[in-house]
Amino acid sequence: MSKQIVGSTPKSDGFHMPAEFEPQEEIFMVWPCRTDNWRNGAKPVQDQFANVAKAISEFESVTMLAPHEQYENCRAHLPSDIRVIEMSSNDAWCRDTGPTFLIDGKGRRRAVSWTFNAWGGLVDGLYFPWNDDDLVAEKICELTRTEYYRTEGFVLEGGSFHVDGEGTILTTEMCLLSKGRNPAMSKEEIEHMLCEYLGGEKVLWLKDGIDPDETNGHIDDVACFVRSGEVCCIATKDKGHPFYEASQAAIKQLSEMTDAKGRRLKIHQLCCTGKPVFMAGAESIDRRRGSRMRRNGELCIASYANFLICNRAVIVPQYDDENDGLALSQIQAMFPERKVIGVRTREIVYGGGNIHCITQQMPKI
Amino acid sequence: MSKQIVGSTPKSDGFHMPAEFEPQEEIFMVWPCRTDNWRNGAKPVQDQFANVAKAISEFESVTMLAPHEQYENCRAHLPSDIRVIEMSSNDAWCRDTGPTFLIDGKGRRRAVSWTFNAWGGLVDGLYFPWNDDDLVAEKICELTRTEYYRTEGFVLEGGSFHVDGEGTILTTEMCLLSKGRNPAMSKEEIEHMLCEYLGGEKVLWLKDGIDPDETNGHIDDVACFVRSGEVCCIATKDKGHPFYEASQAAIKQLSEMTDAKGRRLKIHQLCCTGKPVFMAGAESIDRRRGSRMRRNGELCIASYANFLICNRAVIVPQYDDENDGLALSQIQAMFPERKVIGVRTREIVYGGGNIHCITQQMPKI
Repeated sequence: MSKQIVGSTPKSDGFHMPAEFEPQEEIFMVWPCRTDNWRNGAKPVQDQFANVAKAISEFESVTMLAPHEQYENCRAHLPSDIRVIEMSSNDAWCRDTGPTFLIDGKGRRRAVSWTFNAWGGLVDGLYFPWNDDDLVAEKICELTRTEYYRTEGFVLEGGSFHVDGEGTILTTEMCLLSKGRNPAMSKEEIEHMLCEYLGGEKVLWLKDGIDPDETNGHIDDVACFVRSGEVCCIATKDKGHPFYEASQAAIKQLSEMTDAKGRRLKIHQLCCTGKPVFMAGAESIDRRRGSRMRRNGELCIASYANFLICNRAVIVPQYDDENDGLALSQIQAMFPERKVIGVRTREIVYGGGNIHCITQQMPKI
Repeated sequence: MSKQIVGSTPKSDGFHMPAEFEPQEEIFMVWPCRTDNWRNGAKPVQDQFANVAKAISEFESVTMLAPHEQYENCRAHLPSDIRVIEMSSNDAWCRDTGPTFLIDGKGRRRAVSWTFNAWGGLVDGLYFPWNDDDLVAEKICELTRTEYYRTEGFVLEGGSFHVDGEGTILTTEMCLLSKGRNPAMSKEEIEHMLCEYLGGEKVLWLKDGIDPDETNGHIDDVACFVRSGEVCCIATKDKGHPFYEASQAAIKQLSEMTDAKGRRLKIHQLCCTGKPVFMAGAESIDRRRGSRMRRNGELCIASYANFLICNRAVIVPQYDDENDGLALSQIQAMFPERKVIGVRTREIVYGGGNIHCITQQMPKI
């Protein structure tokens, strides 16, 4: 059943998005190949996507979605227990283009297909066109025979919010109030949409993310829920670090917030890289009208917070940085019951995101 | 699990192809769109494929596989209970390009991916290239997480054989001994391959099919198993009918055969159309180098035997012919326990096949 549900909202139908730390059925990913975003014909990043998929597949089923031209190459890069399905896309960010899956109390699963406009449409989007990306959510719903809601005209990406599964939604003003998404809507109207489509009660607004230019400040590079009442937030004491101000502000705001259940949040601090990561090798990226050009020396958004929580494990970005090990041990302390697996993802961050951005979980029912 | 199994055959692993009349899980179809095979931009035939899919979906799950360019149009043509999955192909004959599914006695399912060369490769194939078609079987195995065998270099299509699920395989010499498939192999070697990959014991060889030029005489326009020990075979007493000689010869041969269990076959005769169907409107078909050109007045292979047996039903071609009703009543008599559903398929036969050619069943386990 791939029916689009019209005339009601998830919340009114008794559905909500469960937290990432709840039991999952499967992880979806999209194979990277656009040579006007990824270095060196996308070959190095394909290896890193494959390594992320392999790391997850030790714990949970993985489906990789690859466009026609790359199907055979993708299939050859992955072990046979990872499923490869042909699917067109404009780029490889399944967190943002995939469906947001929901569950209800009766063992049913549904999903939301948000309108996608490449993180800002014609205002400050990253590429044009984005029509194939905007169909990815519905195609995954077809694949999994999941009924879905569509927010036609309301623009959102999965990386711009986190939920605790108990009514709390965490997001940023920088992203959700950006001019390229829903400029005609007030903050209250957007908050209402979030609560209706994620099945939530209370929205916690951080002011800023750490990438104003790329996703306009997605929350998933800054903070996430570790379990009920507890969040992880990036932190650095190095005043020269490019993420210093935003991370200090985020911690201060989070420390003053209560969740939907009225609990004051417990904050786990997560280190930043010792050295900022800057773009390199951009000369091997193809030029194309309509695509944001990457330049050597630009700051990359290398955050350890862009990890994926999956069944029995946490898959964490590694940057060949002095703080890689510290990040793993801090995350291990937050998740003592899970295996913490580091995967080198420098090529992925050169393209604008990381492990959380390229994955989308389907919850178990 | 989409693993390719190497080093053994289905038969040696205890697998065989069940008969079409055994319980099924799902039917796969491929959406037609090549404008150098189908009339009028493939629009009329798309309606007829949709009608076939809808008829089946009353009884059983249907998945329609549509290429990127046609995904949205295909989705819009079908009700929401028919699943639409993006998949590239060269044309729309899932019987011949899809996997042949197998079962064993332990509740497991596997499949065979035959090498496909567009019904004759560079000798007398119908189009070039056929590389996307040759991947359809494996992509369906990925989709369904089915382990498969691949007969690399051994060319075969699903429409060239029928089985009774009890060791008997029915085929034609015209097709399997054709120069465009496996010309270096003897009849005995081909028979061995059939038995190994379909899990059979005995091959019944009819001499000719009724379409020497199209599929080189696929069995599925001539005869099929109705149940254990019983076959349906086309028949006409009209000596002027283009199928007269082949059908009379087929009935004579079948009447002298015994199946793998040593049973003499009971033969149910099925009428032919009152008037032969000839190609019309070919001027609206695009011209393209490498594709067999269709001409007005050419004989079309309009056989009532190209029906699909699915759960609780039989889906039967109708040609707006005087014998349409007779064919339905004859088939109803063969299958008293099933609903017999006629679907108008003149546009499909103009493209070279019919309902059995465009469907592929996955058996239940």
